[in-house]
Amino acid sequence: MSGFVSLVGAGPGDPELLTLAAARRLEAAEVVLHDALVPETILALAPRALRVSVGKRARRPSLPQERINALLIRLGRRGRRVVRLKGGDPFVLGRGGEEALALASAGVPFEVVPGVSSAVAAPALAGIPVTHRGIASGFAVVAGQTAGEDTALDVVAPNALTLVVLMGLARRREIARSLVARGWRPETPAAVLLAAGTPEEERWTGSLADLASGDELEPGDRPGTLVVGEVVALAAVLAPREPAVPEERNLHVGRR
Amino acid sequence: MSGFVSLVGAGPGDPELLTLAAARRLEAAEVVLHDALVPETILALAPRALRVSVGKRARRPSLPQERINALLIRLGRRGRRVVRLKGGDPFVLGRGGEEALALASAGVPFEVVPGVSSAVAAPALAGIPVTHRGIASGFAVVAGQTAGEDTALDVVAPNALTLVVLMGLARRREIARSLVARGWRPETPAAVLLAAGTPEEERWTGSLADLASGDELEPGDRPGTLVVGEVVALAAVLAPREPAVPEERNLHVGRR
Repeated sequence: MSGFVSLVGAGPGDPELLTLAAARRLEAAEVVLHDALVPETILALAPRALRVSVGKRARRPSLPQERINALLIRLGRRGRRVVRLKGGDPFVLGRGGEEALALASAGVPFEVVPGVSSAVAAPALAGIPVTHRGIASGFAVVAGQTAGEDTALDVVAPNALTLVVLMGLARRREIARSLVARGWRPETPAAVLLAAGTPEEERWTGSLADLASGDELEPGDRPGTLVVGEVVALAAVLAPREPAVPEERNLHVGRR
Repeated sequence: MSGFVSLVGAGPGDPELLTLAAARRLEAAEVVLHDALVPETILALAPRALRVSVGKRARRPSLPQERINALLIRLGRRGRRVVRLKGGDPFVLGRGGEEALALASAGVPFEVVPGVSSAVAAPALAGIPVTHRGIASGFAVVAGQTAGEDTALDVVAPNALTLVVLMGLARRREIARSLVARGWRPETPAAVLLAAGTPEEERWTGSLADLASGDELEPGDRPGTLVVGEVVALAAVLAPREPAVPEERNLHVGRR
């Protein structure tokens, strides 16, 4: 008897932004392998499951990807109902494709349950639409760890699409300088969005030049999203006055 | 007494890919203004609400954006609990930013509830990770209606990021030819994904050259997503054998 592995996106952090499918998979799960950044409020939706944290927090020890793949295969072969719970969406810079390939090669039945990606939701929760008529007709999402080293920042023409950088928090100043060197206007609005959709949420907005020269915001070990582009200026009008707190939102408190 | 407007993402079409927040907003809604493409299975989650279809289906009459904005403001001022339900995510090429600005200007309290974007979920449901280590370290999402006319296709360097084109179905051949003219390799894998996450789901994969020269797939009035890039080749291994049907998935039927 074979098990079943669900590669599930946990969304940006607010349990309310889980999909119905994700909540159902968690409820039925026997084992949950989760990234360290998935908050307790989400893990609590899998009350019967054995929980295994596999790390993947910046600058902290993690289980190597090969061991995560092997563990998923072993649990699947043992007949377990497994949820592999990943921040945001499993296929947006989350190495979900590698896990899916490993399961397919091993003949373990699996599915992918897409999630709300932080690339779009973190800006949205801060009042920043990644696209806006007349301002940006598209957006690009790139990984920040390697930005500047490889071509990730080179492949998007300066001052055109909105640029969203995930996993680039530690290198945010270098990335900003690198973008300016590549022809982005130094006055381009930029945002640093920490722990979107959680009670630890914090935001900073300024210009690429400000970001390059350093700012006051201390990320600690919160995850963060960088957004660069004219759409960031819309946050001045559209941002909720207070960072969204799930409890507040559930009460339909009028916010702007 | 003021009402409250929730700009809600409905996800790609499968009700299971609604967020918990979206389902709650629908349940509590007094009025739902929805895009024509939102399926009945999702609208059924708002049993008490007056439903207003505002169109936005390709080549069909729609309510002009200004009238949608005015209607949202009027309903909000009348104290109604309103859900503006949009396909995918409200801020990904959905003109949600314009609706949010209109509400902010009018002083009507509102919120944005991010959704699962078709830009990521349609490929995922077809076994295509938009990013994959060693293949694509990022992706770009652009609008297809204007692609080729404006710079939307020019701003992403050829053969680098995965390119996702929304609302470009009718112009898919022109877009493919345009990409090849801009330096994309004609043999680059490409996919046309119709009605992802619904029972009408259908998929085509081939090369940019195939797409440029025309294919057998007849979209009808189904919505569709174009994906161009080497990651499309992974679908040969990762695609579920049958298009995902919500009922099947709920039964945890083992699929590959």
